[in-house]
Amino acid sequence: MKIINGGVCAAKGFKASGIHCGIRRNRQKRDLSLIVSETPASAAAVYTTNLVKGAPLTVTKQNISNGIAQAVICNSGNANTCNENGIEIAEKMCGLVQEHTGIPAGDVIVASTGVIGQPLDITPIANGMHELVSALGDNSGYAAEGIMTTDTVKKEIAVEFELGGKACRIGGIAKGSGMIHPNMATMLVFITSDVNISPEMLQKALSTDIADTFNMISIDGDTSTNDMVTVLANAQAGNARITDEGEDFKIFMKALNTVNVYLSRMIAGDGEGATKLLECKVSGARDAETAKTVAKSVICSSLTKAAMFGADANWGRVLCAIGYSGAQVDVGKISCAFSSKSGSITVCKNGAGVEFSEELAKKILLEKEIEILIELHDGGFDATAWGCDLTYDYVRINGDYRT
Amino acid sequence: MKIINGGVCAAKGFKASGIHCGIRRNRQKRDLSLIVSETPASAAAVYTTNLVKGAPLTVTKQNISNGIAQAVICNSGNANTCNENGIEIAEKMCGLVQEHTGIPAGDVIVASTGVIGQPLDITPIANGMHELVSALGDNSGYAAEGIMTTDTVKKEIAVEFELGGKACRIGGIAKGSGMIHPNMATMLVFITSDVNISPEMLQKALSTDIADTFNMISIDGDTSTNDMVTVLANAQAGNARITDEGEDFKIFMKALNTVNVYLSRMIAGDGEGATKLLECKVSGARDAETAKTVAKSVICSSLTKAAMFGADANWGRVLCAIGYSGAQVDVGKISCAFSSKSGSITVCKNGAGVEFSEELAKKILLEKEIEILIELHDGGFDATAWGCDLTYDYVRINGDYRT
Repeated sequence: MKIINGGVCAAKGFKASGIHCGIRRNRQKRDLSLIVSETPASAAAVYTTNLVKGAPLTVTKQNISNGIAQAVICNSGNANTCNENGIEIAEKMCGLVQEHTGIPAGDVIVASTGVIGQPLDITPIANGMHELVSALGDNSGYAAEGIMTTDTVKKEIAVEFELGGKACRIGGIAKGSGMIHPNMATMLVFITSDVNISPEMLQKALSTDIADTFNMISIDGDTSTNDMVTVLANAQAGNARITDEGEDFKIFMKALNTVNVYLSRMIAGDGEGATKLLECKVSGARDAETAKTVAKSVICSSLTKAAMFGADANWGRVLCAIGYSGAQVDVGKISCAFSSKSGSITVCKNGAGVEFSEELAKKILLEKEIEILIELHDGGFDATAWGCDLTYDYVRINGDYRT
Repeated sequence: MKIINGGVCAAKGFKASGIHCGIRRNRQKRDLSLIVSETPASAAAVYTTNLVKGAPLTVTKQNISNGIAQAVICNSGNANTCNENGIEIAEKMCGLVQEHTGIPAGDVIVASTGVIGQPLDITPIANGMHELVSALGDNSGYAAEGIMTTDTVKKEIAVEFELGGKACRIGGIAKGSGMIHPNMATMLVFITSDVNISPEMLQKALSTDIADTFNMISIDGDTSTNDMVTVLANAQAGNARITDEGEDFKIFMKALNTVNVYLSRMIAGDGEGATKLLECKVSGARDAETAKTVAKSVICSSLTKAAMFGADANWGRVLCAIGYSGAQVDVGKISCAFSSKSGSITVCKNGAGVEFSEELAKKILLEKEIEILIELHDGGFDATAWGCDLTYDYVRINGDYRT
């Protein structure tokens, strides 16, 4: 398997575009993106578990209930959530795709991200459709920009691998946290592939993988109303159709995981106000759930996140977060270390502090990517979670007036 | 019932003191407190649920297992947690109380707050005991200061009420969040009373009340390893002993609740870096658990807390936090309002935004005490939770180097 260029356009038969249509005031910011497949594709999606759900999610769920889709349309600048006419507007967006591309409205995935509780005006979207469709091409980067809010970098990746001698590709774009009118961190991920796979197996692959990737990210513990990850697989690679959990499914899963881990790390490292990517690796847990619970609790701890911002090896906060996680652990067996490209340092053994060089610890924690390594010495399971530090800028971005 | 002066010394037969003994470097800061009752008292306590527990909690639990205690000793500056000799040091602190007051070591409640993972030196405590015991008197305020870390105000209250014609009192001191060597927010509350009540009923009163008071506070979602609330009731008021849930128990519960709500609000409003007290009142819930879950989720939302810091009526974040709380609610029925002494404004009805004056909303949210009012229109249960805003200073306090 190798990393390649092209993002969501790397897979055969996919085109994308992203334009500024006028939902966002800043004309330098793209705010409308489109991804289309030449042919109908197997489709799968996972959605936020928030009871307050964006209207686009309801429409998308309905549209891909038959396992087929052919296009993705997504705007930034307005989440189209908690509005009286949200469903109507989301359906209109799908209708506009049909009008301008011929792809049936019922085969369109629709998404929105931005402020909630304000009506989304369809006018700029309708006016921008001609330009959006005309611009379709090898433009994954523009599509990635069109879904950004206060993300500071666009997020895209693609991989190539072989199934039965056929070259196959999976590519994805994602947005993380932050908005011009800050409201909440919506995570959106759109993945394309030319693999031939049944909608059932595609959904199985996605649902299985996100438990270890996107669901292991936390920026601030606030689960958005509009989170969504979708995959389209249009079969153009020409591989034998994947319809069960055989060897090909495993290869596909591995490629999908590579894409999702990459995007998860990018989203975490570009969290609102973040200066560092935090990666918490837990090993030696009695079961997989324990490993995950511990890793997520550490990554979510405001005190740990603030300590990492200050490059402070304050491991007591890590132990504290393990202790209140709800996971069953033997505190007296826990070891903890911090690691980065500047080195690695053990700060706690058997649940108690050990002497360590504060100078080396500081050097390690001043890097941009920090590993928090936790060994529970209680079994053979492990897990990784991703997050970011808590900074002045997080408060600034989210404490600013909307107006 | 009336509010009176005197804190933990308001109840008959209690004396207190607080001194600087040298655990903390700043000689202006008291770091050792003592509360004693003339006579043995019924004792009750509740402890952190964190699996990583401070050594003093283990010793206290053992000492009051018979329902009797007569003194409280507490130091700040070091949590005596995750040390190899923590139990030994905590027991030595109880032994020092016995040596200097004659109160049996087994009748002493011991507590510590401060940095974890560093050994606590018994020397300054031993050297300070003579001064500490000599200073015992009507000094609740000094005792309240001796348990402070980065708290900005001392926290004490007392109430007087009648039981069967006898004047009774309950008083308390508390500490909230923050440390000179910041580590984690430890909440400590020590309550004294001259009411005659059995240890069993005292524990029942405390355990019942904290579910609606101290357990409804959140500063930053990090549950400390050293949280503890204790009550001593020495029977000196001369009321008929409370041994069941009759009318006197109800009056005692109401007085205890008044003390605990007052201290809860003080702790929340003085959270690390806080500029505002947030009070989330949920009504119309289908059951008590739902009301509590919703109120705590809103109070814990980093995005809501940051919006309150910015005086931004960003109600979408409140709805978002309700949605991911895990509570069963009907989103389409939710109303939300913000209120303070400058007025009240409804921002959401039936789960969707309503037009409101941004100017009035800003005026309301610029006050120091903000109410977030949520009506679920789904039943007859309510709950209140307390928290604070998320500010630059929270990040500064917790991002600073320990060294």
